[in-house]
Amino acid sequence: MIIVMKQGASKQELADVKKRIEALGYMPHVIHGETRNVVGAVGDERGKSVLQALESMSGVENVVPILKPYKLASREVKPEPSVIEIAPGVSVGGDSLIVMAGPCAVESEAQILETAHAVKAAGATVLRGGAFKPRTSPYSFQGMEEEGLKLLAAAREVTGLPIVTEVVNPRDVELVAKYADVMQVGARNVQNFALLKMLGQLDKPILLKRGMATTIQEYLMSAEYILSEGNRRVILCERGIRTFETATRNTLDISAIPVLRQQTHLPIMIDPSHATGHAALVPSMCYASVAAGCDGLIVEVHPTPETAASDGPQSLRPAEFAEMMTKLREFAAVVGKTI
Amino acid sequence: MIIVMKQGASKQELADVKKRIEALGYMPHVIHGETRNVVGAVGDERGKSVLQALESMSGVENVVPILKPYKLASREVKPEPSVIEIAPGVSVGGDSLIVMAGPCAVESEAQILETAHAVKAAGATVLRGGAFKPRTSPYSFQGMEEEGLKLLAAAREVTGLPIVTEVVNPRDVELVAKYADVMQVGARNVQNFALLKMLGQLDKPILLKRGMATTIQEYLMSAEYILSEGNRRVILCERGIRTFETATRNTLDISAIPVLRQQTHLPIMIDPSHATGHAALVPSMCYASVAAGCDGLIVEVHPTPETAASDGPQSLRPAEFAEMMTKLREFAAVVGKTI
Amino acid sequence: MIIVMKQGASKQELADVKKRIEALGYMPHVIHGETRNVVGAVGDERGKSVLQALESMSGVENVVPILKPYKLASREVKPEPSVIEIAPGVSVGGDSLIVMAGPCAVESEAQILETAHAVKAAGATVLRGGAFKPRTSPYSFQGMEEEGLKLLAAAREVTGLPIVTEVVNPRDVELVAKYADVMQVGARNVQNFALLKMLGQLDKPILLKRGMATTIQEYLMSAEYILSEGNRRVILCERGIRTFETATRNTLDISAIPVLRQQTHLPIMIDPSHATGHAALVPSMCYASVAAGCDGLIVEVHPTPETAASDGPQSLRPAEFAEMMTKLREFAAVVGKTI
Amino acid sequence: MIIVMKQGASKQELADVKKRIEALGYMPHVIHGETRNVVGAVGDERGKSVLQALESMSGVENVVPILKPYKLASREVKPEPSVIEIAPGVSVGGDSLIVMAGPCAVESEAQILETAHAVKAAGATVLRGGAFKPRTSPYSFQGMEEEGLKLLAAAREVTGLPIVTEVVNPRDVELVAKYADVMQVGARNVQNFALLKMLGQLDKPILLKRGMATTIQEYLMSAEYILSEGNRRVILCERGIRTFETATRNTLDISAIPVLRQQTHLPIMIDPSHATGHAALVPSMCYASVAAGCDGLIVEVHPTPETAASDGPQSLRPAEFAEMMTKLREFAAVVGKTI
Repeated sequence: MIIVMKQGASKQELADVKKRIEALGYMPHVIHGETRNVVGAVGDERGKSVLQALESMSGVENVVPILKPYKLASREVKPEPSVIEIAPGVSVGGDSLIVMAGPCAVESEAQILETAHAVKAAGATVLRGGAFKPRTSPYSFQGMEEEGLKLLAAAREVTGLPIVTEVVNPRDVELVAKYADVMQVGARNVQNFALLKMLGQLDKPILLKRGMATTIQEYLMSAEYILSEGNRRVILCERGIRTFETATRNTLDISAIPVLRQQTHLPIMIDPSHATGHAALVPSMCYASVAAGCDGLIVEVHPTPETAASDGPQSLRPAEFAEMMTKLREFAAVVGKTI
Repeated sequence: MIIVMKQGASKQELADVKKRIEALGYMPHVIHGETRNVVGAVGDERGKSVLQALESMSGVENVVPILKPYKLASREVKPEPSVIEIAPGVSVGGDSLIVMAGPCAVESEAQILETAHAVKAAGATVLRGGAFKPRTSPYSFQGMEEEGLKLLAAAREVTGLPIVTEVVNPRDVELVAKYADVMQVGARNVQNFALLKMLGQLDKPILLKRGMATTIQEYLMSAEYILSEGNRRVILCERGIRTFETATRNTLDISAIPVLRQQTHLPIMIDPSHATGHAALVPSMCYASVAAGCDGLIVEVHPTPETAASDGPQSLRPAEFAEMMTKLREFAAVVGKTI
Repeated sequence: MIIVMKQGASKQELADVKKRIEALGYMPHVIHGETRNVVGAVGDERGKSVLQALESMSGVENVVPILKPYKLASREVKPEPSVIEIAPGVSVGGDSLIVMAGPCAVESEAQILETAHAVKAAGATVLRGGAFKPRTSPYSFQGMEEEGLKLLAAAREVTGLPIVTEVVNPRDVELVAKYADVMQVGARNVQNFALLKMLGQLDKPILLKRGMATTIQEYLMSAEYILSEGNRRVILCERGIRTFETATRNTLDISAIPVLRQQTHLPIMIDPSHATGHAALVPSMCYASVAAGCDGLIVEVHPTPETAASDGPQSLRPAEFAEMMTKLREFAAVVGKTI
Repeated sequence: MIIVMKQGASKQELADVKKRIEALGYMPHVIHGETRNVVGAVGDERGKSVLQALESMSGVENVVPILKPYKLASREVKPEPSVIEIAPGVSVGGDSLIVMAGPCAVESEAQILETAHAVKAAGATVLRGGAFKPRTSPYSFQGMEEEGLKLLAAAREVTGLPIVTEVVNPRDVELVAKYADVMQVGARNVQNFALLKMLGQLDKPILLKRGMATTIQEYLMSAEYILSEGNRRVILCERGIRTFETATRNTLDISAIPVLRQQTHLPIMIDPSHATGHAALVPSMCYASVAAGCDGLIVEVHPTPETAASDGPQSLRPAEFAEMMTKLREFAAVVGKTI
C-alpha cells in the first residue's frame, strides 16, 4: 500500500500514520515529496484490507494498493497454466480447445437428446443444459430441477458427453453434484460467497462465470474463494459485461482473455451466446475468442429456437452450430489447438 | 409486444408470425408500414416471455416489449404508496423519514453498544449492523455470524431500536429471522432468486438493495419475486451503480427516486455510504436524497473508522452523524416529513 | 509517480529505471518490498506525462500517478471558491443560487420572448437558448444560427436577462461572443481542445458542460485548457453521465457536486433536463442538486413542449417551472442561499 | 414510431394524439390493447424527430422508435459492401485486409522515417502518425502541426505508403487535406458535427473513429453527417468503449464488427492500441478482430516506446509488429483475405 498524505499534513499526522502502519505489522517507509509526502507500507498486504481504513486518519488523502489481492489464482504463485480434467480424456487448459454446447434450459427428453446427439456429431465434447434457471422474472420458466438433471444424465448415458449444469442455491449443491461433471456458477452468483465456499469443498471442476459488473480483479477474488477452500479445479468464463451499448445484450470483453492470461494460470472460456444475445452474432465471436487465445467455448444450441422456453434468440440451430464448428477448426489450427 | 418485421419479409413469413402469436394466446394486429410491417400482439404479455423467442423466426427483425413485466410491484396495480411497519411505532413509506444507522459489521459488544446509543441519541430509529459479511476477498473479515446477531439483539434490548441485518445464504434465513426485525438483501444478492423466494415466504419486512448493475426494471422484478411469494413488505434501497467514474466507489443514481416513485408503490430508501465510499461525501448525499423525495436513509456509523474491520473510509463518526441529522431535519421539514 | 517493478525484476532493470527517472528530472526513491520493489519519482509530475511511458521499460509492471494532473483548477492552488460575474449584479459561486432557464433551441421570436418573460417572472436570472444545435441526426433541426442569436439579444433587451448560448465551432467563436454573455460548451465538445483554447483567450465566462463519458479528473483537465490560456471565468456543469440504465436519458452524477467541491474552486452547476430527459423528473433533481450544494441550475423551459423542435420531452412548461422555483426557494434557504 | 398510451388515458387524449400524428404527416393506426392502447405512426420517421415530442402530450406514456434513423449508411439502402480506395492499389472493404501502422505522434524526421520503413517491411500498407494531437492535458505534447504533416509527406515520398492523420479543428481541414490521403476523425470528435460537415464536402476518404460513449446507432448517425454532405468514402473504426473495467484503457467492443456488418455497407476497422492501452494485449486483439471479420486494423508502432511523447505503453516495437503481422496472415487466410 502507498499512503498519500495531504498537502500540508502536519508532522504529528505523519507520525501517527507511521505508528499505525507499524501497529498493523508493516514497515513504514516515507518518501518526502515536493508538495506532499507518501508512505509506503512494506509487507504482504493481502489479507489485511484494514490498511484501507487508514484513509479515515487525519492528514491522509488516499490509500493506493500496489499488490494484487489474490494469491492462489495468481500466475506469480503458479506460473504454468492449469490443465483441468473434466472427464476421462476431456480436459480444458491444454492443447485441445473444448466446446460445451446445448440448450439454455432442459425442456424435455426429446429436446435434450436431439441436441446432445447433434452437438456431439458436430464436435462438442461437453453437453450443457440448465435444470435450475435463474430468471429475471418470477413468472418465467424456472427449470425442470431434478427432473432436468436426470434427463441430462440420460443424455450423457447415450452420448458419452460429460455434462455441465448450473447450481444456484447452496442447498442444491449436493443434489446437482450427484449428476453433474462440471458445476456451473452463473454470472448472477459470481459473488454469492456462501455458494462459492461450498463449491470450494467439492471434488469437482467448477465453471465460474464472470458477473456482468465484475472487474477482472474481483472476478479472480471470487475464484480465490473456491481455491482457498481446497478445490483447485476452477475454470473461468467471460460472458459479456454490462455497458451503455444496447445493440447487444452485453458487451463481450474479449480483451479479458489476454489480461486473464497474464494474471492467472486458470483456464479461460468464453460464452458468446449470453454475451451477444443474438444467434447471428455468435459464430464470429467464437472465431474471435479462439483467435484471442481462449481455452474453450460454451455455446447455446436449440433444435427450435423460436419455441425455446428461455434465451431462444441467442441459440444456434444444430445446422448453424455444425457449420460454425467446421470453420472454428481452421482458427484452432492457427493457434495450435485441436477440437 | 411489437414484432418488427424485416424490410422485404415475405407474406408467408408475416402469416407465420401471426399464426405463432395466436398459438401463444395473443391477438395479432398488423400495421402495414411504408418500408416494413409491424405486428402488435395484444394480450397481457407479462409472464409469457416466450414472445421474445419470436426473434428467431424468419422475417422478424426484432421484438419490442411494451408493457412493464412486473405486476405486484407496480403502481398501476396498487396506486397508493405502501407504508411498511418495521416495529411498533416505526414505519417506512409514510410521513416520517426513517434513518437506519450503525456500523458496517458488528465487531464487538462495546462497538455495537456505543454506536447504538450514539445513533439513537442523534435520531436514528433503526440500528444496522452486519453479522454475515459478503466480502470481495476470502481473506477479509467475514463477520461474527450468530455471535454478531446476539450482540445486535442485546443492543436492541438496551436501546429499543429495531435491527436490520443482512442474510446472504438461504440456509441462514431462519437463523437471521430469529434475531432481525428487518432482513436485508445486499446488492450482490439482488438476483439470488433462491434467497428471494425464501424471503417471500417470511412474515418480516425485507430491505432489498439494488445491485450495482441492475436496471430499475430488473430491480422491480427482483422485488416481484418476494411479493409473488406472499410477502408484501418490501423496502427498496438504491446504493449506487457501477459506472466508469472512479472518484466515488459507485455512482449514486439519485434519479432512481422519482423514477421508482412513478412506477412502484414500495418505499424507497437510499444508502449514501456504499454509493460514495467516502465519509466526507455522505452528508450532502443524505440531504440530496431527502430533497429528491426518498422515504429513508441507511448510513454507516462507526466510533473509530480508522480501525474498522470493513468499510472504514465510508463510515461517519458519531459526532459527524449527529451534525448531519440536525441539518437533515431542516430538509425533511421542507418536504413535509419528520425524523 | 510510483513505478511498481515486476516480481523478480533484475538489479539492472531497477538501475535502468532509476537512471531514466533522473534523466527526466525527478529524484528516484526505492522502497524495497518483500516480493517486489517500488520506486517513487519525486518532483512535480504535472506536465510531464512521459513518466507513464516508463511502463514500456523492461522489469516494470505498472506506473501509478499520485498527484492530480491539474493546477489552475485545483483547490490546492486557490483554496477560496471563485465567484464569477456574468452580468452586473448576476454572479455564480457566491451566496445566490443562479437559475438559467429557457428553451433547448430558439425557434421563433414569439417563442423566445414568451419564454424569457415567463422564466424571469418565476425568478430565473439568466436566459438560455440554443442557436447552434449539435444534433445526433443530420436530418434534425440544426438551429437558427445568427438569426437565433439576434432573437436572444432581443429577448435580453426587453427582459434584462443576460444570455447563455452554445458555441460548437471554433469558427463561430467571434460571432457567438458578439451576442452571448456566457459561452456554453456542450457535453459533446468537452474535449474539443481547439475550441477550448480559443475560449481560453476570450474575456467572457464559459459554461463548460461535463461530457457523458468524462471522468471528473478529465473534466477538470478540460477546464484547465481554458484556464491555462488566461480565461479564469470557467463555470462547471454536470449534466448526466452515460451508464447502463435506460429509464433516464443519462444518469445524473449528483455526487460529483461534493467531489468537485473538494477538488476545485470553480462554481458548480447542474443541468437536470439533459441528465434525466423527462420533464417529470426535473423538479426533484433540482431540489436534490441544491441540497447537495450546487451553485446553480440550468433548466429547459418551453411554452409548448409537444411541438418543440428539440428536446420537448425534457422541457418544463412555464407554470411547472414557476411551481418548481417556489419550492426551490425553500431548499435554497436551508443551505443559506437566495434565488 | 409506436406511441404507448397510459393505462386509463381518455378518449379525448387518444384523439388528440391521432390528430397530432396526422398534422405531422403520418398515418395513425391504433391497436386497442387489454390494459392500454398503442398508436402506430405510419410513415418514414427518419428526419422527423419531432415525433419524440409527443411524449409531452397528456395521456402518453412513451414513444418507441421502430426504424433506424440513418439512411445513407444503411445496408437496406445499399446492400453491397462499399470498397473504398485510399490510394492507387490500396483499398479497404474488399478482399485485402488493410493494416495502417505508425506512431501515435510524429516526433522527428528520424522517428517517422524509421517507423515507416519498418512497418512497410512488415506488410503495412498505410502509414499513420499524428500531427495535431488532442491530449487530455494542456501541458502534454500537442503535436508538431504542419511540420509533422511535412514529415509524414516525406515518409510517403520515400516509402510509397499513403498516410492517414487526424484533423481536430474545422479551421485545419484544408491544411491537413493538402497532405493526407485519409483524414482521421478521432474518438473525441465523433460528434463534432461542424467538423463532420466540412469533411463531408471533401473528396477524400474519412477514417471515422467511434467515440468512447457512442452507441452503434449514434455512430452511424455521425457517419450519416459525412455521407449526407456528399462524401461517400467513410471508413468506420471501433477503438474501445468506456466501461467500469480498468484493467484495460477501454473495452474493445469486438461484437460491434458483426453488428455493424448487419447494419451498414461501410468498411469496418479496429484500433486495438487505443482499445487496450497496453502493447502486450495488442497482438491477440488484432487476431480476434480479423477472425471476427473486420476489414482492417490501425496499430501504433514506435521505435522506442519508453521515450514516446504520447501513448508509449500501447505502442508495439517494430520487431513485435513484424512478428504479429506474420501470425496475422494465417488468420487472414482463414477468412479469405490477403494482407
